Amino acid sequence: MNKNRLETFCDGVIAIIITIMVLEMKVPHGAEWSDLSTLLPIFLSYLMSFIYLGIYWGNHHHLMYAITRVTSGIIWSNLNLLFWLSLIPFSTAWMGENHFATNTVALYSISLLMPAIAWYILQSLVLKHHLHPDEFEFAHRRQNRKGKISLLCYILSIVFAFISPVISGVFIVGVALMWIIPDKNIEKEFK
Amino acid sequence: MNKNRLETFCDGVIAIIITIMVLEMKVPHGAEWSDLSTLLPIFLSYLMSFIYLGIYWGNHHHLMYAITRVTSGIIWSNLNLLFWLSLIPFSTAWMGENHFATNTVALYSISLLMPAIAWYILQSLVLKHHLHPDEFEFAHRRQNRKGKISLLCYILSIVFAFISPVISGVFIVGVALMWIIPDKNIEKEFK
Amino acid sequence: MNKNRLETFCDGVIAIIITIMVLEMKVPHGAEWSDLSTLLPIFLSYLMSFIYLGIYWGNHHHLMYAITRVTSGIIWSNLNLLFWLSLIPFSTAWMGENHFATNTVALYSISLLMPAIAWYILQSLVLKHHLHPDEFEFAHRRQNRKGKISLLCYILSIVFAFISPVISGVFIVGVALMWIIPDKNIEKEFK
Amino acid sequence: MNKNRLETFCDGVIAIIITIMVLEMKVPHGAEWSDLSTLLPIFLSYLMSFIYLGIYWGNHHHLMYAITRVTSGIIWSNLNLLFWLSLIPFSTAWMGENHFATNTVALYSISLLMPAIAWYILQSLVLKHHLHPDEFEFAHRRQNRKGKISLLCYILSIVFAFISPVISGVFIVGVALMWIIPDKNIEKEFK
Repeated sequence: MNKNRLETFCDGVIAIIITIMVLEMKVPHGAEWSDLSTLLPIFLSYLMSFIYLGIYWGNHHHLMYAITRVTSGIIWSNLNLLFWLSLIPFSTAWMGENHFATNTVALYSISLLMPAIAWYILQSLVLKHHLHPDEFEFAHRRQNRKGKISLLCYILSIVFAFISPVISGVFIVGVALMWIIPDKNIEKEFK
Repeated sequence: MNKNRLETFCDGVIAIIITIMVLEMKVPHGAEWSDLSTLLPIFLSYLMSFIYLGIYWGNHHHLMYAITRVTSGIIWSNLNLLFWLSLIPFSTAWMGENHFATNTVALYSISLLMPAIAWYILQSLVLKHHLHPDEFEFAHRRQNRKGKISLLCYILSIVFAFISPVISGVFIVGVALMWIIPDKNIEKEFK
Repeated sequence: MNKNRLETFCDGVIAIIITIMVLEMKVPHGAEWSDLSTLLPIFLSYLMSFIYLGIYWGNHHHLMYAITRVTSGIIWSNLNLLFWLSLIPFSTAWMGENHFATNTVALYSISLLMPAIAWYILQSLVLKHHLHPDEFEFAHRRQNRKGKISLLCYILSIVFAFISPVISGVFIVGVALMWIIPDKNIEKEFK
Repeated sequence: MNKNRLETFCDGVIAIIITIMVLEMKVPHGAEWSDLSTLLPIFLSYLMSFIYLGIYWGNHHHLMYAITRVTSGIIWSNLNLLFWLSLIPFSTAWMGENHFATNTVALYSISLLMPAIAWYILQSLVLKHHLHPDEFEFAHRRQNRKGKISLLCYILSIVFAFISPVISGVFIVGVALMWIIPDKNIEKEFK
């Protein structure tokens, strides 16, 4: 099968999800700065989700690189991932519009947990099928470890939303930072 | 002509349709779980349509693989398919917002029947023009049979919507399962 | 420069325009067939515009085939075309929601005239730069003639909107048919 | 890594941003020309933003041409650029709906300044990593100079918004013209 077409489709869906989120930032009717200020939590939620979708896109990019053939399992694991990612604009908007209220932060954390599980499934499938050298596998196994830490953080974030949404926020920002920063190590191993 | 461009365009349109549907899940104003619960039928409708569009994308992927040249007929059959697929977000939202009311389930079934007919036309055209070995043709002819069963199920689903929408739902879910599960057989024949 | 990237971008924009139009078919609140029937003019307008965008996409596909290098002029002529095409969802929705009222049919005709002019400019530019054999040029020159007939029909359609919108509709449907049907002749000359 | 996938993703996002803006031109309920006339400032804002996004797309096209390998830095600089570009539909709509009021013109100028800074970062990164001949570097260094002039103009445009929004408009249109017109020189140096 054609790996490119799978990549193109995923890129398309992620590109649309990332852009559609901005539509939730409804244009205010007044022309005062105060009319804008009510949008700040929506803006921050959008920023956070944009970064998460950027991370998924980047990691997807690396993961697909490893695939040597596209199976039904990979197609459906991919669609599963895209389905959960497609719900992020909804949870982002709900959280932003309700100024990080308890339930909305919990749902946002769930909406990050679900694609993380989908990612874990997809990655396991790719690791089982790909035929690249061990160094590559090593890099991905480490990513797998990061994936497990992320899953734990999302679950903690769901729990803490009912105690203090701020702590949930710390977990969510922390996971994002963990994925952005050590990306360079993986890259070195590629070269 | 360029087969890739046709694929890219179709992928783009399907990616947009699949993602745009989620916009119909309007963010509720309250921050209570009860505010979310009213969205459950919309969520289930979205899930169902996501799976159907995923199936179409996957099958389109296989079908285009068989094409050796792009004719006007294939371009227009493709556009015909995309037109009917583009109406699925509408019928999905109508059904979801009206909690699976009789008429809305009937329209949803019609909105699945129409692209199925369009698919049948496209597939027949491809089978007439492609030049690949018989094994491949065999696989597609079997798909053609599955296509005919699907057509029948959609028609039954339209009829049963006026008797019991639940039975329509069984037909719709059944057809989806039929397409997801035996995908593996086709794949084996490809390898 | 890279011709592929220009094609991909145009395909993306046309795919989005074609799909975004369907968002104007707002889901009615009731679950009766009578709630749907008010959408019929919007549906018909959408169908017409879908066909026109399909024609543009198909012709663009043929035209880009002829390009041997991408110049600034071609990039901006393309963006000019995409700009006018991007306004079609607006004029389509205005016409559909106002049940083919005089002004709305006139604007719709204008919204078809503008991309037709943009297309004419783009095509002239391509014909000046491309280096393919004469047969190809011949085919395009004939398309150029069809382009001129279309321009005339759009202008007549604008004028007749103020006399009888039905006649405008005949012109609009007629032009669409003219572009769909003899496509096959061009194809023959390609082979 | 795969440069193509980065390009495709950026093209996708820019294509969606450029098209989504048109959704802010809400279809008026009446069918009179006067109903349309209130949309004129929104139309003009859309036109301006369409041109800016077209310029970014064209320049991105040139810049990516220079890249010989995709690093994490380039991926994130790109996402940074796309993030700021994705906010343009919002600032465009706010400005258009409020008929070029002071604050809205200031925000629009800021929404042009931010992607310009992001572009500057991306370009610097590419210039540091790319390995193409000096002529190419020369062309880009000149673009860098144009980038600096643009940054200055955007800042002046923000300041003047509070004195006279018309002067801001002159700066904004001026920068657009500066980028559109001398594009041809760069092209010559490429050939």
